[in-house]
Parts: sequence; C-alpha cells; structure tokens
Amino acid sequence: MDLKSLIRHARGDEPADLLLRNGRVVNVLSGQVEETGVAVAGEFIVGLGEYPARHEVDLAGSYVAPGFIDAHVHIESSLLPPAEFARAVVPRGTTTVVTDPHEIANVLGLEGIRFMFESAKFGPLNMYVMASSCVPATALATSGAALHGYDLLPLKSDPWVLGLAEVMNYHGVVRADDAVLEKIGAFQDRVIDGHSPGLSGLGLQAYVAAGVQSDHESTSAGEALEKLRLGMMVMIREGSVARDLEALVPIVTPANQHRFCFCTDDCQPSDLVERGGIDHAIRQAIRFGMDPVSAIRLATWNPAQHFRLQQRGAITPGRRADLVVFDDLRAPRPRLVFRNGGLMARDGSMVVPPRPPSRTLRSTMNVAWDAVGFGIPASGRLVRVIGVTDGCLLTEALHSEPVIRGGEAHADPARDLLKLAVIERHMASGAVGKGFVRGLGLREGALASSVAHDHHNLIVAGADDESMMTAARRVGALHGGMVVARGARVLAEVPLPLGGLMSAEPVEAVRRQVEAAVAAARTLGAGLHDPFMAMSFLALEVMPALKLTDRGLVDVGRLELVPLWADA
Amino acid sequence: MDLKSLIRHARGDEPADLLLRNGRVVNVLSGQVEETGVAVAGEFIVGLGEYPARHEVDLAGSYVAPGFIDAHVHIESSLLPPAEFARAVVPRGTTTVVTDPHEIANVLGLEGIRFMFESAKFGPLNMYVMASSCVPATALATSGAALHGYDLLPLKSDPWVLGLAEVMNYHGVVRADDAVLEKIGAFQDRVIDGHSPGLSGLGLQAYVAAGVQSDHESTSAGEALEKLRLGMMVMIREGSVARDLEALVPIVTPANQHRFCFCTDDCQPSDLVERGGIDHAIRQAIRFGMDPVSAIRLATWNPAQHFRLQQRGAITPGRRADLVVFDDLRAPRPRLVFRNGGLMARDGSMVVPPRPPSRTLRSTMNVAWDAVGFGIPASGRLVRVIGVTDGCLLTEALHSEPVIRGGEAHADPARDLLKLAVIERHMASGAVGKGFVRGLGLREGALASSVAHDHHNLIVAGADDESMMTAARRVGALHGGMVVARGARVLAEVPLPLGGLMSAEPVEAVRRQVEAAVAAARTLGAGLHDPFMAMSFLALEVMPALKLTDRGLVDVGRLELVPLWADA
Repeated sequence: MDLKSLIRHARGDEPADLLLRNGRVVNVLSGQVEETGVAVAGEFIVGLGEYPARHEVDLAGSYVAPGFIDAHVHIESSLLPPAEFARAVVPRGTTTVVTDPHEIANVLGLEGIRFMFESAKFGPLNMYVMASSCVPATALATSGAALHGYDLLPLKSDPWVLGLAEVMNYHGVVRADDAVLEKIGAFQDRVIDGHSPGLSGLGLQAYVAAGVQSDHESTSAGEALEKLRLGMMVMIREGSVARDLEALVPIVTPANQHRFCFCTDDCQPSDLVERGGIDHAIRQAIRFGMDPVSAIRLATWNPAQHFRLQQRGAITPGRRADLVVFDDLRAPRPRLVFRNGGLMARDGSMVVPPRPPSRTLRSTMNVAWDAVGFGIPASGRLVRVIGVTDGCLLTEALHSEPVIRGGEAHADPARDLLKLAVIERHMASGAVGKGFVRGLGLREGALASSVAHDHHNLIVAGADDESMMTAARRVGALHGGMVVARGARVLAEVPLPLGGLMSAEPVEAVRRQVEAAVAAARTLGAGLHDPFMAMSFLALEVMPALKLTDRGLVDVGRLELVPLWADA
Repeated sequence: MDLKSLIRHARGDEPADLLLRNGRVVNVLSGQVEETGVAVAGEFIVGLGEYPARHEVDLAGSYVAPGFIDAHVHIESSLLPPAEFARAVVPRGTTTVVTDPHEIANVLGLEGIRFMFESAKFGPLNMYVMASSCVPATALATSGAALHGYDLLPLKSDPWVLGLAEVMNYHGVVRADDAVLEKIGAFQDRVIDGHSPGLSGLGLQAYVAAGVQSDHESTSAGEALEKLRLGMMVMIREGSVARDLEALVPIVTPANQHRFCFCTDDCQPSDLVERGGIDHAIRQAIRFGMDPVSAIRLATWNPAQHFRLQQRGAITPGRRADLVVFDDLRAPRPRLVFRNGGLMARDGSMVVPPRPPSRTLRSTMNVAWDAVGFGIPASGRLVRVIGVTDGCLLTEALHSEPVIRGGEAHADPARDLLKLAVIERHMASGAVGKGFVRGLGLREGALASSVAHDHHNLIVAGADDESMMTAARRVGALHGGMVVARGARVLAEVPLPLGGLMSAEPVEAVRRQVEAAVAAARTLGAGLHDPFMAMSFLALEVMPALKLTDRGLVDVGRLELVPLWADA
C-alpha cells in the first residue's frame, strides 16, 4: 500500500478493509488497555477508533495485542521447516520470529539458509534472520559447512536479515580472535546478538565492549542483572529444555523492564502444540507475578525495538497489522491471529491452507559405516562422564568407573552409565568420538539422532554396542532422523530427511512420531522431559561443562579436547 | 580505537587512559545508581569497576551520568554557530544534540547546512543533523532557498545525518501532498521527526500512519497522551519561549516513560548560559516530581534509542565516553563533562580552547529598500491582530480598531496595538507584509530582526513608522541582526552577520548584546521574557493561529492568506 492510500484510509476517507470493534487494545506504548476499535487496510493498521469498514468483527470486549515476537529461535529444533513451523506457532499468536538458522547452516551452509528463506516466503509468519556467526561453533567438531565473514556480508543486503546471530564463540571474542572479530566488525551497524552462558566480570565486559548487544543464556538473576547493567538486552528463554523464566521474572522491575524480551531458542513440536511458545512465556510470566501488559510488552515492543522493526511491535497507525485477539488478559490464549491484516488462525487452528511441501534437499548423511565402531579400549580406571541435568543445557563434568570387560570399557546401565558416541556424518571421514554419559537413564537399548548441536553429527547413546549400531544405522538409512532401538530391533523412529534436522511431514504427524519415540525411549528407562532434545545438546561444545564431538571429549571451560580416561 | 584494543582494555590487560573512581554511576538501563568506577580508553568506555589506569580521578561519591542529549534543537536560535553553541551547552552537560538546521537552510539551502557541519566538526559537541524537511515551511512566505526531496537524498550518506527533520507541513501530510510525501518516502528507513501542534483525531492518525515518529509540540497532557498512544515519541520541550515541561511531566509514568525525551527546540543565549538547556529540563522535571534516574533517562537513553545512536546514551563498555559528573542527584549541575573520553568542561567552563572563528558567510541581506514602506491605507474599521502570549509559540487571532489618520491605519501603543511588518530580504523583491500585533508591549520605538522563523525575512514591530525604518535599515547595514530603535536613533543592536541568524562573537559577548537589546526594549515598554524571540515566531506560518509573512497575514488553521481588514 502506498503512502497516499495509507493516509486516505487513516483519515477515514476510504473505508477500511476490516474493523475490529469493541476490543480492548493492549497499548504497549502507554502501558494501558484501551477500549477502542482497530481499523486495518491492506496489510496495515490505519487507525484506532471507529472507522467505516467493508468488514467488521465484533470482539465483544476481547483483548487485542500486537502479534507476539520470538526474539531468538532455532526453527530447526522444532524438527519442522519454516512453512510447517509457522503452522505450529502462528495459531499461538507468534506472528514474527527472529531466527538464527545455524543448525541447517552447519549442515549445508548458505544453501541451508536459502532453504529456510524459501520455505518461509509467502507463508503466514514473519521470519527475520540473523546471519549465523558460528558455523562451525568451534574447530573442535566437524561440521558440514563453514561460514566466514565474507560469506555473511552478502546477507546484509537482504531486508529480512537484521544482523549477526548469537556470537557463541565468546571465548574467541574475549581473546580477540581475528575470525570472529571480522564478523562482528562487518555487522557493527546492525544488531549483534550474544550467547555467553556464565560469562561475567572482565570477560563479559570485553564481550560487551566488542559490540554484542544481547544475551539469552542467563539462568540466574545475578547473571541476568550483570548483563543488563552492562548494556545487554536480556532475552528470557523458555524453551523445551532450557526454562529460565521462573528464575528471571522476579528481577524485572518497572525501571528495567525495557531491557527484557522473551525467546524460546529451542522447542520441540509437542511443546509448541500443547504448551505453546511465546504465548506460554507470557502466561508463565504473569503467573510468576509480572503484570500482563508488561509481559505482552516483553513479547512485542521490546524485541521490535531491539531489532529496529519499525513496522511491528505495537498497535499504531502505519504499522503492520499483526494482531492477536484473546479473552483473558491474565492468561492470554489467542482466539484470532492476524498477520499483515489477514486472518491466519482461529481458535488455535490455521485458517489458511498449508503451502505445498518444501523442495527436497539432497541427503546429507555421509557416513563411512565401515569405519564406525563403538569399542573403547580400556586404558585406565576412571573415565570422564558427561552429567545431564533435566531442564538445563549445561552439563556436569563427572568421573566414574566403567565396566571393564575383554580389555574394553562398557556401559553400566545399572549405575546409569551409558556409552555415548558422535559419528561424523558430513565428510564420511569415519571419525567417531566416544565417551560416557550419566542422567539419560536408559536401562537397555539405544537412542540415535542426526540432530546434535551445532555440527549435527550422528549422536548415539546406549546400553550396549549392538543397540547403538542398530539405531545409528537406521538414522543413516532414513537420511537423518531420530531412532530408538533395542538389540537388532528398531522400536520407533522420526524421519528427518531435510538436512537430517527437519521432517517433511505436518507438525501433527511429527509430534506423534516424536511422542512415540519418547514413549519408546521411556520403555527403555529414559526419564527426562525429552531425552532426544537433551541428547542433542550433549555434543554442543560451547555450552559448559563437558561435551562430546566427533573429535572427542571437550572441556568447554578451556575449550580443549580432553582424554576420555581421567587417570591415564 | 580498533576492536582488538577495545577488548584488551575491557579485559584489563592494558591500562585504561582514565579511571573515574568512587563514583556513583547512574545506570539508565537498570534504573539504579551503582557505586563503581568507570574506565575510559581513547574515546570509549571500556569497563565498569576498578581498572588499572594511567590517570585516575577520585569522584568522592559524585554521580556519573551519560552525557545529555538534546533531542531536537535549532542551534541557530541561540544566535551562535555550532562551534560557539557547543561552548555554551557542553559545560551544562549536553554532549550530543540532534539539530534541524532549517533556519540557515531557509536562508542558504545546502550551503547553510554545510556551514553548520563545518562549524561543528572537531568541536566538543556531537552534532547530529536531521535533514530539513520544510524549506520553505510553506509557499506563503519567501525563503532564501528551497530543499526538495532530491536535495535531501545525498545527505542520507552522511553518518551524522540520522533522518528527516520535523515534518512541519502536517497539513501537507494529512492532505497527502506529493512534495512532502516524496521526502517522507525517501527517509522511510530512517527516523522521521514530527511537528504537529494541536493535531489530533483522524488528522493525527493520518500523520502517524505516514511514518512520522515523534512530536515536540505537545503543550497539554491530553495532546501528549494522544500522540504517545498512537506511537509517537513525545519530546518534552523546555526552551526559552516554549516551556511545556510543567504541563507534561505529570503524565510520565513507569509504564510509559520509555516514550519521552527532552528537547529545547529554541533557546536564547542568556537562557543557555544562566538557566541551562537539557540540564535545566532535568532539574525542572525532578522539581515537578519525576524521579531523578528517570529524568536522566529521558535525557540520555531514550533519545539514543529513538535516534538509534548505538554508541551513546548509557554508561556501558564499548560506548563513547560521554560522561557528566555532578554532586546532587536531585538537582544535577555538571561539575565535569567528558566527551569521547576527553575532559571538555569543569565547573561550568570549557577547558578546551575555542576553535578559530568560523569562515565568513557572504551577506544574506538583500532588501530593495526603495520599495520598503510601512504605510497601511485604511480600508475598513477592524483589522486582524496577532495576539502574543508569553511562553507560548501559539498566537491568538484577534480583532481591533487601529487609529485611522490621514487615510492610513496607525499603531496605538496606549492600547498595546503595534504595527508589524515583514520585509522580504532574500530576493530583494521589495515585498513587505504588514499587520498589527498585541502583547509585545512597546509604548514607543521599534524592534527589528533578521531572525523570523522559518523564512527569516526582516521582521519589524513598532509604535511608529520612523522608528521601524531606523531599526530595519540598521539590521540591513549590519548584514543581519537585532536592533532596538527610537525615532532616528539606534538604542541597541546584536549583529548577526552569519546568515542574518548567528553572531561571529563568543557566547558571552552575544549574551551581553542580547541582554542590552532586551533591556533597551524594556525601556520602550516591552514586557515579555524575550521580546525578540517572541517576535521571531510571529512570522512562523505553521504555528497557529495568526501569523504575518512577507506575503501578508496567514490564517494558520486554514493555511491561507487572509486580508488585514476583517470587515473589508
């Protein structure tokens, strides 16, 4: 719509396309709820008040808020490509996401990012992209692609690219490494998002001084407050595994609330469908004591300001008509969702038809199976063990004694000591990192997945080598996916042929497959909220404390490979 | 300073250049006051806390705030070019101004804007420019230059240009005029500031829908709240004539305070030196009940956010070291002022030497004196009269009966009815607009000035024609200025040879000249705070209600010329 037409509609000289009447508008600028109409013409809000309109909807006192914004999400973690992810989150009121496509970029580089754009285009969701800064995250794992500063520069000319995505290599920034500073330097005129779990003191000051403007990794009040006072936008994360909201909501005050927003980071399909994403974060924040208008501001205006989204984040004339209608201000559950002026969802379901399926991506599973084995020669008594904690992406660095038999170290499920392996799957190099994990809880069988942050090699955890091989091989045969196996038998599977990360099926089907896989894992003893998602972070060598990649065990604090045997 | 060096300093690996110790830092992000040091290296803040440093200053518990930002100011109104204006405001804590150079642009076009840049460069003040959108303000006056959309576009590539300056032609926007929409369209990706006194309802919605993002013309709580809820940043103005702070402070709440900032718009030199600019606004806001940290936020973080000044507005690592030190949080009076890490002022005086005087501008006084006269043939009984109110830019449209003598209408100082004339001074066309004014209070003599917003023709008010001619002719002889005359005698004068708007002398000299001129005007009966500044707005045909230009009387509400004689 051109400016002239916008102005004519705002003046009321031309009838609006749509008038939402008798609503209570959540005004995130004034902080008040106003009884007023909202007039929409084309893709834009043209006015507040009573306007002549071609079509009217009587809201009968329902609330109208700006569409919700997820300030930081890896869409791939939902196991859905953007077109299908949209169908999961839009009915929940999320009309805009800011995504870092670094999962697919680690597999397929710029080709992967292009796939994400293509899948999102003309869909019901505004998908803004932050250029992935850490592909690969470190040199301690093998990824399928690498993005250098000069690879990212062309992305700046895309209007849907807002800046540089979470700079996870905070060690590199604090050390002033050339490669990461080149990327930061290239995006100094844009938004630069951060990722610095546990970073504080001088290191954090250096990270902020370099130009990093936000962080979504605070898990405690003290950590978040330090980041806030040093200038960072604090993104409160409420995802499937990482749930930081309860710890952080108490520190939000009227004086500092402009420095917070909400994000999900990583959500599995069941959570998106059953629990919700940003809508869930809003409801939780209210439950934990935040006033509703502030909670909605954290989900709308604040991220729009951070990302300089001039056309979104509030209900004012001239902005895009991204609107959410709900009945209960203290527990918003979107009843109607508009995006760019069009009704996208009603009563939790999309009202626009799905797009044709995304184009097929070539198979990305390249494993030298002949070289793959899980045997661990015994060369000590004590092994380093990755300790998993439910609801937290951080692991503990533990020590334990494995069962030694036939000169090899074995899992001991009775003591919750499982074998863990990461099989390189991009270059068919045959590399396999091997270690042990505690906390997954399997008494028998194995889980395997081609989703293993951020390099997404093939990760396998199991009680015995045969089950591990069955599960891993099946993931390969599916061109990627998640598999539960016991002995030679596959118990459940989730095919993820799109980059080994995303399904080609609708969200409901994927959710059922994942639930079946989780249920199958539970029959084997797995006890976590989502054992596959928990396992997918055991290979992420930038989240403390101990992780496993295809190169071996990584001490994240020192960002170094360490031997499996602690007493060797 | 390159990123690597910044990071090394932030880590504390290299000593800072300066450590401000034992300060109490006003953290506009957290809303708290923190006892901590501030380390500075080169032009940047590198860290909060104790740092090794080459030079330390013990603040002994004084407060440290970010440098103040004036969100909207016409520097020319101070009668000083930027280099000298800086010496007036920097000791008061203002380290950054966002200026609309539309006064000089109305006289000299782009050449005038270049002069402002040149005068500010390498000086002690950050001067950001908004591209003047309304040169001329309307077609109802003769200006010295015109800036079209294509003239403004090249300014976008200057990093010190932030967007489009106050779109004063709000009628044109609401009417969707091509010329003004062309300019707005060209700056849609930048900040667009507004100017819409009294605009409300559908007109205001249309103005906002067009993309105008702020307003500094609200004079009442209701006006400001309507603009705020529709999406505008509300700039609270506290200038020399327009003083809106007392009316607007009561509406600032914790929930909406992120949508306000301070500006001075127009300040005369005496006020800048004696009363202060933004520092005065902060103190006044606190006096009227705002909490001090919020008041400082309105003067720092909020304008930095509005104008997307990533490097300013807060005391955090990596931002520019623009810092203000003061002792009393409830009445901040800057004791030390740093800009880009360098000490600029101490105890109210600059500590850096003045710059060499700005280059001379060619004379801009082009008057066809032979054609100039002030006679008004009588052609009715009742004339329209401009009614002046002290402390307000708005005038009243009054009616009165002038003295008719010899077939001509004359002033009647006994009834505070003066003659007013606006002599075209750019094109030497000989055009003179004539009318009457009430409220200036002169009992005898005349005032003349080449400062007459925005076209800056030569404005003269007086009790008799001879005094008016003496004053006007003297302004011409000075190549611009302000003059007080009685009969054939010049009583006081302020030479303003730079465009007829600015002095070539230091602020103290200008202040004394202005004070002498105001004192001389007072001996003639003038009763306003500053009769010259009040007079300078009587020609501004975009501020209601009745104004006079070289073309004649303007009914601002209808934006039309109207006859002098109301009953003709």
